Amino acid sequence: MARNKYPEETVQLILDVAFRLFMKKGYEHTSVQDIIDQLGGLSKGAIYHHFKSKEDILAAVTDQMTRESNQMLAVIRDRSDLNGREKLKAIFSESLNRPVQNDLFTVAPDFQNNPKLLFYFMQDTVKNVAPNYILPIIRQGISDGSIETDYPEQLAELIIFVINIWINPMISGGSADESYRRFQVFGQMMRGLGLDIVDREMLGRVRELASIYQKNRCQKNR
Amino acid sequence: MARNKYPEETVQLILDVAFRLFMKKGYEHTSVQDIIDQLGGLSKGAIYHHFKSKEDILAAVTDQMTRESNQMLAVIRDRSDLNGREKLKAIFSESLNRPVQNDLFTVAPDFQNNPKLLFYFMQDTVKNVAPNYILPIIRQGISDGSIETDYPEQLAELIIFVINIWINPMISGGSADESYRRFQVFGQMMRGLGLDIVDREMLGRVRELASIYQKNRCQKNR
Repeated sequence: MARNKYPEETVQLILDVAFRLFMKKGYEHTSVQDIIDQLGGLSKGAIYHHFKSKEDILAAVTDQMTRESNQMLAVIRDRSDLNGREKLKAIFSESLNRPVQNDLFTVAPDFQNNPKLLFYFMQDTVKNVAPNYILPIIRQGISDGSIETDYPEQLAELIIFVINIWINPMISGGSADESYRRFQVFGQMMRGLGLDIVDREMLGRVRELASIYQKNRCQKNR
Repeated sequence: MARNKYPEETVQLILDVAFRLFMKKGYEHTSVQDIIDQLGGLSKGAIYHHFKSKEDILAAVTDQMTRESNQMLAVIRDRSDLNGREKLKAIFSESLNRPVQNDLFTVAPDFQNNPKLLFYFMQDTVKNVAPNYILPIIRQGISDGSIETDYPEQLAELIIFVINIWINPMISGGSADESYRRFQVFGQMMRGLGLDIVDREMLGRVRELASIYQKNRCQKNR
């Protein structure tokens, strides 16, 4: 394996294999040796050349899971044709509609057997997504008059926490119908906060994604 | 050690020791042998007489953490002198004011090193507290006219999820001041949902608990 010739491909291969194993066996029950065994002849030294530890691999795997989504958030955050509230709406709508969501809900990362991955994801939500993407949009909304709050940091956290963690069927479980109802209550919560941005199209898409997830979980558990 | 004479005391001792070790070293880094080593001569067989596995001990530890709180919730749920909205308010107020909260925030369970404990706690919130304690109160509120919603199950989940997970400094981190601001935004969210139940006294108590927690974290990390 030409690891020195194509280091990026090697790293990508390690991450792909590790992701699949973490999902299948759980992070705790996957050893670095399990990852090596599926890398077609890569040595232990080679993997430790790229990653310090299993935890380090996990961090890179989660990074990759969130990178693409963060790029999309940055694009919307930096648009100059929308006010704060419109940007929030665009973020929900685009997040739900990205085609990669279908893949993600098909792979259906099993957070329930991966509490460590769940913890990383929660950390990323509160410490990265909220302050770096949602907060600047809320601040803009306050100054353009489209959003009203005395606590922009905490409002940013609440919104993204509820949508990423509570509504997420991969974390909180529940049927397609329950996910749909959760999103309805989220819409009610947002309206109560003066942010009427959840529409029918989003609701339909939530139901669709939750169905994809449920279908694949049922097949997995057969 | 008279394990057959006082089985309840033995179980309690195992749970106390296990809880302390999980908090100190983290669940993943605590072995059953570590627990035995601190039990003053109890044999491995004796511990396995009471618990099938380390995971089984963890489940019992979390059970114990939530049992007392659940009893308090049940008492309020079953009162006949309050309407639904008043019961919700009583739950928040009593939860915050229980003296045991001071102990809990002093021990300061470190969920950040205990993703598995975090996961149990989240499961308990969504699958036990929401349907068994908050939901009956919301249903009562719907019939007595003090609460309005088309999705009682999901509203119960949202409220308790936000308060137990997002506002909880043991999980989401943050200073005393940040916890106070989170609770302010929670109050705003509840008012938006037609539930004006967060008052000044609760806000003061949240700040106090978050201070206790911060103080003890700082001492621990010295």
